[in-house]
Amino acid sequence: MAALDELKAYVREIAEISSAAALAAWDQRTHMPPGGAEARAKVAGKLERLAFERRVSDRMGELLAAAEREGASSEVDEALIRVWKRDHTRHRAIPPSLYQKFVETTTRAESVWEKAKAASDFGLFRPYLAEVVDLVREMARLIGYTDSPYDALVEEYEPGMTTSALRPLLGELRRELVAFLEELARGTPPDKLPRGRFPLDAQRALCRQALGWIGYDFQAGRLDDSVHPFTIGVGPGDVRVTNRYQESDPFSSLFGALHEGGHALYGQGVDPQLGWTGLSGGASFGIHESQSRFWENQIGRSRPFWQFAHPHLAHHFPTLASTDPDDVWRHVNRVRASFIRVEADEVTYNLHICLRFKIELDMIEGKLAVDELPARWNRAMEDYLGITPPDDAHGVLQDVHWSAGMIGYFPSYALGNLYAAQITAVAEREVPGFWDKVQTGDLLPIREWLREKVHRHGQVYLPDELVKRITGSGLSPDPFLRYVRAKYGEVYGL
Amino acid sequence: MAALDELKAYVREIAEISSAAALAAWDQRTHMPPGGAEARAKVAGKLERLAFERRVSDRMGELLAAAEREGASSEVDEALIRVWKRDHTRHRAIPPSLYQKFVETTTRAESVWEKAKAASDFGLFRPYLAEVVDLVREMARLIGYTDSPYDALVEEYEPGMTTSALRPLLGELRRELVAFLEELARGTPPDKLPRGRFPLDAQRALCRQALGWIGYDFQAGRLDDSVHPFTIGVGPGDVRVTNRYQESDPFSSLFGALHEGGHALYGQGVDPQLGWTGLSGGASFGIHESQSRFWENQIGRSRPFWQFAHPHLAHHFPTLASTDPDDVWRHVNRVRASFIRVEADEVTYNLHICLRFKIELDMIEGKLAVDELPARWNRAMEDYLGITPPDDAHGVLQDVHWSAGMIGYFPSYALGNLYAAQITAVAEREVPGFWDKVQTGDLLPIREWLREKVHRHGQVYLPDELVKRITGSGLSPDPFLRYVRAKYGEVYGL
Repeated sequence: MAALDELKAYVREIAEISSAAALAAWDQRTHMPPGGAEARAKVAGKLERLAFERRVSDRMGELLAAAEREGASSEVDEALIRVWKRDHTRHRAIPPSLYQKFVETTTRAESVWEKAKAASDFGLFRPYLAEVVDLVREMARLIGYTDSPYDALVEEYEPGMTTSALRPLLGELRRELVAFLEELARGTPPDKLPRGRFPLDAQRALCRQALGWIGYDFQAGRLDDSVHPFTIGVGPGDVRVTNRYQESDPFSSLFGALHEGGHALYGQGVDPQLGWTGLSGGASFGIHESQSRFWENQIGRSRPFWQFAHPHLAHHFPTLASTDPDDVWRHVNRVRASFIRVEADEVTYNLHICLRFKIELDMIEGKLAVDELPARWNRAMEDYLGITPPDDAHGVLQDVHWSAGMIGYFPSYALGNLYAAQITAVAEREVPGFWDKVQTGDLLPIREWLREKVHRHGQVYLPDELVKRITGSGLSPDPFLRYVRAKYGEVYGL
Repeated sequence: MAALDELKAYVREIAEISSAAALAAWDQRTHMPPGGAEARAKVAGKLERLAFERRVSDRMGELLAAAEREGASSEVDEALIRVWKRDHTRHRAIPPSLYQKFVETTTRAESVWEKAKAASDFGLFRPYLAEVVDLVREMARLIGYTDSPYDALVEEYEPGMTTSALRPLLGELRRELVAFLEELARGTPPDKLPRGRFPLDAQRALCRQALGWIGYDFQAGRLDDSVHPFTIGVGPGDVRVTNRYQESDPFSSLFGALHEGGHALYGQGVDPQLGWTGLSGGASFGIHESQSRFWENQIGRSRPFWQFAHPHLAHHFPTLASTDPDDVWRHVNRVRASFIRVEADEVTYNLHICLRFKIELDMIEGKLAVDELPARWNRAMEDYLGITPPDDAHGVLQDVHWSAGMIGYFPSYALGNLYAAQITAVAEREVPGFWDKVQTGDLLPIREWLREKVHRHGQVYLPDELVKRITGSGLSPDPFLRYVRAKYGEVYGL
């Protein structure tokens, strides 16, 4: 055990530094005065460097080798070695000078992207993106892969996932969803709810209440305002969420709260034993997203949920008191082809991902030049959704990911939706009276079930293993497709 | 310049880590959910260790030696070497095992002290305090001194200050103040203001406004609630204050805001050049305290200030609209012998310090056993203030400092009061129409004057040097004594 204990002490140090970094990131986006921005960038950079130096150090390599020789005697120890070895190997593959160049290039690209998006001018962003893509391709080459350089990238977000698995999966999803959209077009779209102004403080109160319903522990977290909602694990016992509010729309913030709350329940539900081991994150970005989508969509957009939640909504927003629960349920389940991914409904959302997957895959495999991006994007939008972006801001420039070098991340969003549907299908069988519980707001037993099945394990299992343990079989698009067909068929009266 | 540049890069790293530690400390006392406490203690400990390792490292010793050989070519570089060498030498003198023991002992002692204070049971705290005193004496021996082991301690808070300088200074202060208290007893004490309930949100609004009056920059800081008010420099451009509020008393929070605001103006006014050098703190704890006391007492408790501030007070608290400015001025300048230092008025406050100085000096010099503390405390309270504490909670157990091993700190509070009076006396001459400006709320020129004379220099000058630069002469109790005699003579109609 000596080698493993030494490894644990070493990764604990990294985890402690990362906790300080997480707090710095949280503060930066919630409370930091503007004057602190420059200093914060330096401090954040220093903390990242302190952690990074340790992750790629010779010492880490030695500790990992010694721990492997000694052998792990538990699943947790095995995972500890696996996770840190993967991290060490991947990051050691990148020479410090290249990594430095990557950080500098993406920092610059992200700030140019902001301007380019504001001006809807892809030409401005094009050379920076080209540089990012070149760097990412070089990094993929150094990390290594068998089939596609994209494999080396997607592995960062979805350990064990490959391009050859994603291609047919997202292909099927696309075909089925495009066909289903055509069916929906023959149905009856839901009516709109009365418009109004929904005071921000009432929205905040409702969101706080909703976090309580799903079992978010305010003793081990807090809710703040921010420009973009996010969840951050500051450390064991401290998992914070943020949200944003628009006066014209009380649902955007409510679903935001359920979404971030879902992420936060994962963090709050990890076995305390896994604290400071580096295993207290999610099994993957896709699995993490499944937990946010579970509460946001599977529960929050369900008919039984609105039976329960409608009186609370009406209490906070008297102008909605004249509606009935089904009006709201239909309203929050409208489907409409639209340009912006983050505003997309459940049916069209995955099409936005399929589009991005194909495009970034082709870029990374050298089959698509950056110059051709806008045309390719717009053509795909027409093929998948039947609409043409009016400009690049509503098209190829809408997402931050590529400017930040996060290529290979997008599939995780779709996987999250699929996993969420798979997990819901099991929960419906295993949690007695699942939908009755939702309808009465008795959501804690559902959180407990998720905690037992998903949350407590942190990163101990690979995503595929975890899904097999829960569902008895691997990743599949079928439960998701069944779910959207059933629900939206009902909403649209097909 | 090579050696100095290397030293600067090294201390910059320490400053960046310390910035992360400051943010962690701020968050812990303002926003952290209770569940995060255990993890935060570990993270704070890790950050402190990372900084400490560097402060005492062989590398630091080498860098300092090389920089000294190379020679400094500016006052700033000279101060940089002086400040870090002092830090390095003092901390190297303490073996890591002893320092570890000190941290553990004081952590335990502080938590026992809390219980002992709550139970007013000195016996509970006694053995822990004895251990702390033994450790601190041992540390003083290792750090080294010529005359008194207390010199080695007070140097931590007031560089250059000695026991032999403090003894006559605080002795004179005590004699003069005890005599002046007797005079005051023959005067007419001011009437009380109408009692009332002063809503916390109105207090918060007034405090925010008052911070604005004195020129606190909310773009480079923020105001939050906390159990004990404090100011913390998170980093360049980010100096935060906190405050607390009692419904029965609007003045406690207002003076708290002016006090913390005074500290914060120092931090906000440091020359940006000094950022990340370790020189952006105050010249000493006493000089820092002079800045808080300047705004709290010299300005905030002055007659002209209430000419200006009274309408604002009446606006926030309509029950006080029937008072006039002089009523408030008298009210906030009542003098009364009392048990608790932090609640003491300007005249009696320094007597609380004189008492603590004598007692801790005797403890450290081995002339007073911990067992005898309560009796000695109570006797001194009778001698200085003519009152006897009803119990140890209102006596020897009231302050946290000794439990935390902060012996040698108390004199800084008195020095702050003396420096504030010295600085005010110069400002009255140098800022045209000083009191007219106060009376019209035109306080920014006064902040500018302080910035020029005090703030911008950070730690570049030793306290004594700084005071000489400002006043033309060194530390003196005379301006303070003149000030209290003049003001309180007027308040009490002597």
